[in-house]
Amino acid sequence: MADSPNCDLKSLSPLQLFERVTEQGEKVRALKAGKAPKDEIDAAVRMLLSLKLSYKTTTGQDYQAGLPPRDLVLINNGTTNEENEDFVDPWTVQTSNAKGVDYDKLIVRFGSSKIDTDLINRIERAIGQKPHRFLRRGIFFSHRDMDQILDAYENKKSFYLYTGRGPSSQAMHVGHLIPFIFTKWLQEVFDVPLVIQLTDDEKYLWKDLTTEKAYEYARENAKDIIACGFDINKTFIFSDLDYLGTSTGFYKNIIKVQKHVTFNQVKGIFGFTDSDCIGKISFPAIQAAPSFSSSFPQIFNGKENIQCLIPCAIDQDPYFRMTRDVAPRIGQPKPALLHSVFFPALQGAQTKMSASDPNSSIFLTDTPKQIKTKINKHAFSGGRDTIEEHRKYGGNCDVDVSFMYLTFFLEDDDRLEQLKQAYTSGELLTGELKKVLIETLQPLIAAHQERRKQVTDEMVKQFMTPRKLAFEF
Amino acid sequence: MADSPNCDLKSLSPLQLFERVTEQGEKVRALKAGKAPKDEIDAAVRMLLSLKLSYKTTTGQDYQAGLPPRDLVLINNGTTNEENEDFVDPWTVQTSNAKGVDYDKLIVRFGSSKIDTDLINRIERAIGQKPHRFLRRGIFFSHRDMDQILDAYENKKSFYLYTGRGPSSQAMHVGHLIPFIFTKWLQEVFDVPLVIQLTDDEKYLWKDLTTEKAYEYARENAKDIIACGFDINKTFIFSDLDYLGTSTGFYKNIIKVQKHVTFNQVKGIFGFTDSDCIGKISFPAIQAAPSFSSSFPQIFNGKENIQCLIPCAIDQDPYFRMTRDVAPRIGQPKPALLHSVFFPALQGAQTKMSASDPNSSIFLTDTPKQIKTKINKHAFSGGRDTIEEHRKYGGNCDVDVSFMYLTFFLEDDDRLEQLKQAYTSGELLTGELKKVLIETLQPLIAAHQERRKQVTDEMVKQFMTPRKLAFEF
Repeated sequence: MADSPNCDLKSLSPLQLFERVTEQGEKVRALKAGKAPKDEIDAAVRMLLSLKLSYKTTTGQDYQAGLPPRDLVLINNGTTNEENEDFVDPWTVQTSNAKGVDYDKLIVRFGSSKIDTDLINRIERAIGQKPHRFLRRGIFFSHRDMDQILDAYENKKSFYLYTGRGPSSQAMHVGHLIPFIFTKWLQEVFDVPLVIQLTDDEKYLWKDLTTEKAYEYARENAKDIIACGFDINKTFIFSDLDYLGTSTGFYKNIIKVQKHVTFNQVKGIFGFTDSDCIGKISFPAIQAAPSFSSSFPQIFNGKENIQCLIPCAIDQDPYFRMTRDVAPRIGQPKPALLHSVFFPALQGAQTKMSASDPNSSIFLTDTPKQIKTKINKHAFSGGRDTIEEHRKYGGNCDVDVSFMYLTFFLEDDDRLEQLKQAYTSGELLTGELKKVLIETLQPLIAAHQERRKQVTDEMVKQFMTPRKLAFEF
Repeated sequence: MADSPNCDLKSLSPLQLFERVTEQGEKVRALKAGKAPKDEIDAAVRMLLSLKLSYKTTTGQDYQAGLPPRDLVLINNGTTNEENEDFVDPWTVQTSNAKGVDYDKLIVRFGSSKIDTDLINRIERAIGQKPHRFLRRGIFFSHRDMDQILDAYENKKSFYLYTGRGPSSQAMHVGHLIPFIFTKWLQEVFDVPLVIQLTDDEKYLWKDLTTEKAYEYARENAKDIIACGFDINKTFIFSDLDYLGTSTGFYKNIIKVQKHVTFNQVKGIFGFTDSDCIGKISFPAIQAAPSFSSSFPQIFNGKENIQCLIPCAIDQDPYFRMTRDVAPRIGQPKPALLHSVFFPALQGAQTKMSASDPNSSIFLTDTPKQIKTKINKHAFSGGRDTIEEHRKYGGNCDVDVSFMYLTFFLEDDDRLEQLKQAYTSGELLTGELKKVLIETLQPLIAAHQERRKQVTDEMVKQFMTPRKLAFEF
């Protein structure tokens, strides 16, 4: 154990890792001061270096003595035990709670508003349809100014949707679909245009990638996004690397945002340090700028100040808190937001699904057999240790990943409720619950793969060509 | 004097201003500690605020106690007296020496190479012509890798020129012409293409300007630049605000540079602080990127890795030291450089001519009468206090601004030498020397105005349209 410090480091939060590095540093100093044998010191130094590397990999920052990892989004779960802290930022989601992040605390901490029954009912009245299961089930749970969007909509004033994706690899997993499934629904029920940003420049800056590779990932990801069924006449998908050089409005908004945000501010919001490259430091403006319709002169026919609504996972909120802060100072309307929870990893809701760990995720390219194996082998169970205990005490849906996934993907509310009761009472066994999930996901992913096959290069080109969308404001 | 602290602050260096703020802060604290009368404390606080404002205006930074202004380019003139320090960065040039900045020290400090007689002779052989007076007279005095440019040129391998201007106002002064006069000559004698960057985005970031106004200044400045006589078939002039949105290559190079430069580095090079906006912090990459031919796919027909030569004033060198550091890491050739001295203000060589102080500059829009008045009234004289003394001891050409200007603009070497001898011996009076300068500048500026009148909007459009230049590499 002591010789292999990395084996269990992946499960540590940045703060826990920080403390491990600090402790190890003190140990090295003590050994040196006590003139310990050379090989003992060497081993301790090797472990220190290894811990520092883990810290850097996890946080994206160099370890600095006395300077804990970025502090803005540490959410204390109400205990004094540091192991119970949630950590949420655009790059890391960590909690020690098997139920996942405490989203009510996140709302308080971020200063957003809860999507409550009143708001859901109001959306239902506005669109004259049953709200999406993501709204009914609290998967989109938080918002900013959604009431203003509805005020305007009820007065026949329209808006546009903006969402995005960082194309870090060719393979997208089911969790990546959540914002797109919801955005497609919003586009349909509100009948509005949509812009989708692929931040290939961000991935170039953060990862060990060439610009060419990042752009290739963007195009591949665009195919999966298109396969979600967006309206080609009302949807513009763009790669930053590509679009920045073809838009007369995008750069102007980027530099306006960049003029009104200081390094102190991005340091506070995103935890950047002096060792970060200037590309990372200025990047937040590039994710901010599509919130302003003047970034898309061709798309909106030169019309400015169109209201923007951004559906995204809550970890992207820091970008848009910054954007909303800047907007009035550059004469632009603040974008409204709808925030989703994170999609949990197969291993449990302590972290979000990650494309870099194949066993934490169900990929959109997985075969029916792979889906079955992954769920049976890796999906964290809320069931009991033995069948007898399970029958007697029942399973725990709050921590059961298969049940969580079903809340995302099973459309039938009654069936979901039945499953919950049967599992909680012990009537339904873990294997049976997993079977329901497998039978839900297999056809869903097969259908996605079928639609993706039909996405041609020509269609990608069309979606990614700046052009006037079929909508009048 | 004490009630009006600003009257003499303009002549102070950033470090001197910093010390004045610090002293005044201590004074306020002492008054408060000693419970001095309220109006005395108030007056001291008012002066402190006023000094802080001057500090910010001069340095572009907020005063921070204990943190002197950016330190990289303080050049100690060999004494321990801080008043004898030269301060040179892209925004400020200050020296207490009436002869101007000590350029030999600058070469050592910046790590560039002196343009010596050998190099000038080699240029003469390569082009088969007499070198420009700016080379003969040490006005372009420093270089990086010019020998490599000549090696390649002698082996029939060509290069392109890159220079630029920050369009801070409509009015350009004669000092602004120096790089353009020299660049035009280089374009002619080497027969090479040229790109000219107008950093309207920089001016938007640093000044209280809208993007529209900055772009308007860029277009107005382009007219003065075109009036210098550049070959329309071999010259591309671009505004950053405009070109970034129309080039498939520019942004890709910008973000590559931004990935390879940290905040720590730009802090060291440019003196940025945590209070600076992220636009300023990332801007150096935008001035770096035109050093790489792939930023101009239309201009160079997609050809990459063409060698670049940058003629500029020495205060721009920090940008290109950074660029040369990054170039090999992004697979690009390092740009070569030719550095000029600063063009002195009418009041003396302690600072460079500034467009924001009308009496420090002769503008390209000045009438013959204005030129005459400004020179007679403001040009700092190296002559003696009385005619008798002048006849007896002679004048000092080293500090005489009229003589300095003649070294820039009088083409005839023999005539210049005669004037020098006559002035130094006391034979020529200050008024007579000024008359020679007036008679040199008046026709020069009148001719420029005549050529500028002939620059049509259509020509500006042509120069600023990305298109293949008439050159094969």
